[in-house]
Amino acid sequence: MFEKNKRINYTELKEFSRKVMRKAGCSEEEAEIVADVLVEADLRGIHSHGVSRLKRYVQHIKEGIIEPNKDPDIILETDLSLVVDGKNGVGQYIANKVIDMVSKKAKTSGVCIATVRNANHYGIAGYYAEKIAKNKMIGIALTNTAPLVVPTFSKHMLLGTNPIAFAIPANSKIILVDMATSIVSRGKLELYSRQREKIPLGWAVNQKGKGTDDPDLVLENMKNRSRGGLLPLGGEGELFGGHKGYGLSLLVELLTGGLSLGNFSYETYNKQGGISFFFMAIDLNIFGNAESIKKHIDELLVKIRNSEKAENCERIYIHGEKEYEKRDENILKGIMLDNPTIESLNELDRL
Amino acid sequence: MFEKNKRINYTELKEFSRKVMRKAGCSEEEAEIVADVLVEADLRGIHSHGVSRLKRYVQHIKEGIIEPNKDPDIILETDLSLVVDGKNGVGQYIANKVIDMVSKKAKTSGVCIATVRNANHYGIAGYYAEKIAKNKMIGIALTNTAPLVVPTFSKHMLLGTNPIAFAIPANSKIILVDMATSIVSRGKLELYSRQREKIPLGWAVNQKGKGTDDPDLVLENMKNRSRGGLLPLGGEGELFGGHKGYGLSLLVELLTGGLSLGNFSYETYNKQGGISFFFMAIDLNIFGNAESIKKHIDELLVKIRNSEKAENCERIYIHGEKEYEKRDENILKGIMLDNPTIESLNELDRL
Repeated sequence: MFEKNKRINYTELKEFSRKVMRKAGCSEEEAEIVADVLVEADLRGIHSHGVSRLKRYVQHIKEGIIEPNKDPDIILETDLSLVVDGKNGVGQYIANKVIDMVSKKAKTSGVCIATVRNANHYGIAGYYAEKIAKNKMIGIALTNTAPLVVPTFSKHMLLGTNPIAFAIPANSKIILVDMATSIVSRGKLELYSRQREKIPLGWAVNQKGKGTDDPDLVLENMKNRSRGGLLPLGGEGELFGGHKGYGLSLLVELLTGGLSLGNFSYETYNKQGGISFFFMAIDLNIFGNAESIKKHIDELLVKIRNSEKAENCERIYIHGEKEYEKRDENILKGIMLDNPTIESLNELDRL
Repeated sequence: MFEKNKRINYTELKEFSRKVMRKAGCSEEEAEIVADVLVEADLRGIHSHGVSRLKRYVQHIKEGIIEPNKDPDIILETDLSLVVDGKNGVGQYIANKVIDMVSKKAKTSGVCIATVRNANHYGIAGYYAEKIAKNKMIGIALTNTAPLVVPTFSKHMLLGTNPIAFAIPANSKIILVDMATSIVSRGKLELYSRQREKIPLGWAVNQKGKGTDDPDLVLENMKNRSRGGLLPLGGEGELFGGHKGYGLSLLVELLTGGLSLGNFSYETYNKQGGISFFFMAIDLNIFGNAESIKKHIDELLVKIRNSEKAENCERIYIHGEKEYEKRDENILKGIMLDNPTIESLNELDRL
């Protein structure tokens, strides 16, 4: 049993998560990787993708959306590509396995791209892109998701939040961009709803496809697969570039569901998860001396960090920094989870 | 001499552009490709990147920023990569040449990536991504630009507008996403300035790094390389995802100036252009049957097109459609240019 308002040691949280997934029917290897990916998210302060997901995963296993103990099938393989069928297995397990294959092939070929169909939610996309970058390569990880986002001028949730994760090793540390192509994720709306707060106008639209500040309305519409939903990065219409966010989301759909001949976001969670992934590893050495490139990149980072701050702003961040610093802090002090998450963990503990 | 308020036949405009570039010192091949890329932009309605650029190109040649009659050097070559030094030659000529090499290599290897340093402005990025897609491959074209965009929480124009162009062949037509990673381009501000209109708050910031609706102030600051500038997609701060647009812009800097050991945007136009490119071609056949993939992608397009429109919206677009339809219209009816552009052409004609 976990106590509310008290920090939890991350190894303890990982061990707990592993046991929950084992009890739910996962193999040792599956349970280990799920626990690792979830706790990594919490360590980095991305609680929407942390152990708060455990309850949903257990439920998904019960419902047959996730099928534990399934090894992905390799449908097609070339020197620099893989097409994988995840057989609706555990998302993190599939992704991690494919990432290892992609990294290995890219080390030999210079580049490797994998596309995966029939997978499941894999947690934070950044975990996988980063794993490639730790191997001194550029890592890209894309996934489609449940349909939650409306294309520009539509009121129909067809697109996923379709995150893009991109990692590149600099000399100092890894630069890690990990972003939903919607302005915010569903998790953010759930947070506002729990706190009984309105959301900023411009994040989401109602059934008419027009802006709303009511998170409960949008969440209810998501649950019923009604109309309305999250807005792509850039917002409603085209004035602030909503069509660009929509374009990025489309790009992710095409590279995941498209190339894999898998499901598009609007076809997912129909009996089974049916999520699609896209991974790419690019060895820096195909462009010359990797160390020179990494040093060169550090110049850009220094320049940005040291640039003049906008009024009332204290610091300019490079992507990944906030999360890595949070991680260092949470490893030392423990992870602080919100009360609903603690309750969900204790509920799982009692099962 | 071109008449104001009258449509111009595109072949006539292309021939005129070719002659201007020839007179400015370009080789026949250079002049041809510059004319083609510029007029393609005007045909598609992207006038900020059309023949209105001719005057600036001629000026850049005079100033030595662009050096005509320079063939790019291949610094490094593998089965699936190219590193190219553009020697500050003509941007369109370099890009077009590299795109042909990348396409050819990808047809053999499955994937090819090129990175280019010391190049110049190449016009619309979509031209190059599309050229790859016409070869039934996925095309990606990135470029950094003059420094015009402020990173989140900074007031320093360090990043370029850094457009991302992505093209993929569907069964029906090519899907072409071509977008600056800033909310709008400098060209949009120039348009508002000419029309003596305020810009929407949220596009750009003043010298303090805070929102402004004054296009002239921002343009003046750009000219003086002062502070303030364009905002990344997602806007000021993080509330609407400005850090995501900043992340995308960073990604482009890293893949262009970073991998090529070339200039970052803030180092460009220092005596010479010094622009960096990144191109990638991916053959669909490395993922199985290209025709099946293209058919599958068409399903997504049909679903999006036929989805329910938001209130008061008449049509949902797939990226590229607007421009292709405009192109068809302009080929038939001629291209309508604004008066300042007509004046600049007539000025060039008198030289």
